[in-house]
Amino acid sequence: MIERIAILGTGLLGTSVGLALRAAGFQGSIVGWNRGAEGAQTALTAGAIDSIAADGLQAARESQVVLLAVPIYASLDWMERLGPILGSEHLVTDVGSTKGQITEAAGRLFNTPERAAFLPGHPMAGKERGGAELGDANLFRGAVWLFTDDPDWQRSPHSAALVKGWREWVSAMGSKTIDLDPARHDELVAWVSHLPQFVATALSALLEEKVGDAPELKDVGGRALREMTRLGASPYSMWRDIALTNTEAVQAALFALEQRLAHLRENLRTPELRNAFEQANKFRRES
Amino acid sequence: MIERIAILGTGLLGTSVGLALRAAGFQGSIVGWNRGAEGAQTALTAGAIDSIAADGLQAARESQVVLLAVPIYASLDWMERLGPILGSEHLVTDVGSTKGQITEAAGRLFNTPERAAFLPGHPMAGKERGGAELGDANLFRGAVWLFTDDPDWQRSPHSAALVKGWREWVSAMGSKTIDLDPARHDELVAWVSHLPQFVATALSALLEEKVGDAPELKDVGGRALREMTRLGASPYSMWRDIALTNTEAVQAALFALEQRLAHLRENLRTPELRNAFEQANKFRRES
Repeated sequence: MIERIAILGTGLLGTSVGLALRAAGFQGSIVGWNRGAEGAQTALTAGAIDSIAADGLQAARESQVVLLAVPIYASLDWMERLGPILGSEHLVTDVGSTKGQITEAAGRLFNTPERAAFLPGHPMAGKERGGAELGDANLFRGAVWLFTDDPDWQRSPHSAALVKGWREWVSAMGSKTIDLDPARHDELVAWVSHLPQFVATALSALLEEKVGDAPELKDVGGRALREMTRLGASPYSMWRDIALTNTEAVQAALFALEQRLAHLRENLRTPELRNAFEQANKFRRES
Repeated sequence: MIERIAILGTGLLGTSVGLALRAAGFQGSIVGWNRGAEGAQTALTAGAIDSIAADGLQAARESQVVLLAVPIYASLDWMERLGPILGSEHLVTDVGSTKGQITEAAGRLFNTPERAAFLPGHPMAGKERGGAELGDANLFRGAVWLFTDDPDWQRSPHSAALVKGWREWVSAMGSKTIDLDPARHDELVAWVSHLPQFVATALSALLEEKVGDAPELKDVGGRALREMTRLGASPYSMWRDIALTNTEAVQAALFALEQRLAHLRENLRTPELRNAFEQANKFRRES
């Protein structure tokens, strides 16, 4: 039933969605728009999109499903522009990493019987570097794709059917879907996604200061060090909007970790150290 | 020239050394001693050792090279017992993760023309779980094997030749050797090895508290979370002696990271965040 999809933003995620849809058997058209011409061309060459749109608004108007795959503030801008011009024959969805502001805007600008549906989404998949050239048809396989849909939103039967159809494509791309309240979403990802990123960034930056002038000594850390700093390669541009739109939850998580580290530091020679290791072991046993 | 090796402690590292020696073409005998009978039997069945010694001291006496592959305080105990009874026809070496106390004992108890040589070693390889059953012939391939040998030690020509021979086997096992001053070693590994471990432990323990009661939500973090907490599975027993013998350096590293995290937390909404990401990116570009 979904036959025309527009992907606004053909970076890593947008390109990967196009490739994953094709791999899952999507036969319809996929038009791509990107701020930079090169990223759009790469996505086209890779087969993630069939054509490049010069005008994202026009591409959205002509599609049934519009996927916003740009940073969060750019998505919010698109929502302001698309809300008034799209009707109930459309679904707009996104892949943003925080959902509070997006979901608020979705309720304000979409999701009435006359307007387009907006389904706030967040695939828990990515890489430490972005760009269409890293697009991967298997990126979402085995991942969790979160939604912060609101059961009280009143949608037309047509746009409600598009929501159902998009959820089915997400499953077809290999993801498990979980629905969460947006505030709970933002708190949860602060712990399991944003905190690990900021820790890797802080650890990598600190090690750059301490051993950055002795590259041969970086080898010493081996696999453990490589893993603990891999996310250190993530660019600021991918994380700026996350820091700005989930500030309080991330601050709380960082503060809690600072306290844990201080406790550990003060107890390197006491039996308390055993408790920390045993609690950590428990987390890994259950995951 | 080395034909008889005793491995005291057939856990993950001891068993892996036995397997790696065989894979590298070592044709001599390898006798193993282990505190628990089960670990010795597993190493024997795996082919890491040819025979099990009931008495570690006796096995050491009958070997040319004695590898201590037990926790650091246990190694220090063996050193006290072996120093007085082994002569210049022997080499003792170890795989302990801190080298200050081991190297001090090596100078005090070994490394005279009449006594055995002691070569303090530290392969930067391991797994987040221990045990002979995880022994791996390729564990040291591509890893760095650190030594904190002292050029001022006076060894007999015989034991000096054993030192040279052991270094060659370490290379044959696939490791790159680097020589460091013991104090520099302990400071360096505090940054690139111990800090990442304690961070993973603190992060895993914190997440156990925050999301441990909702196992389905752990999937949400995906690969990034799995990587950042993998070392959380490391047992206390593997890290207790490290915390006890490298306390000050680990404390300094933890404190520096706490400060970095606090700085990041206070600057989530300022341009300073960009600096942290860029410094982290630099570390990864060079590694």
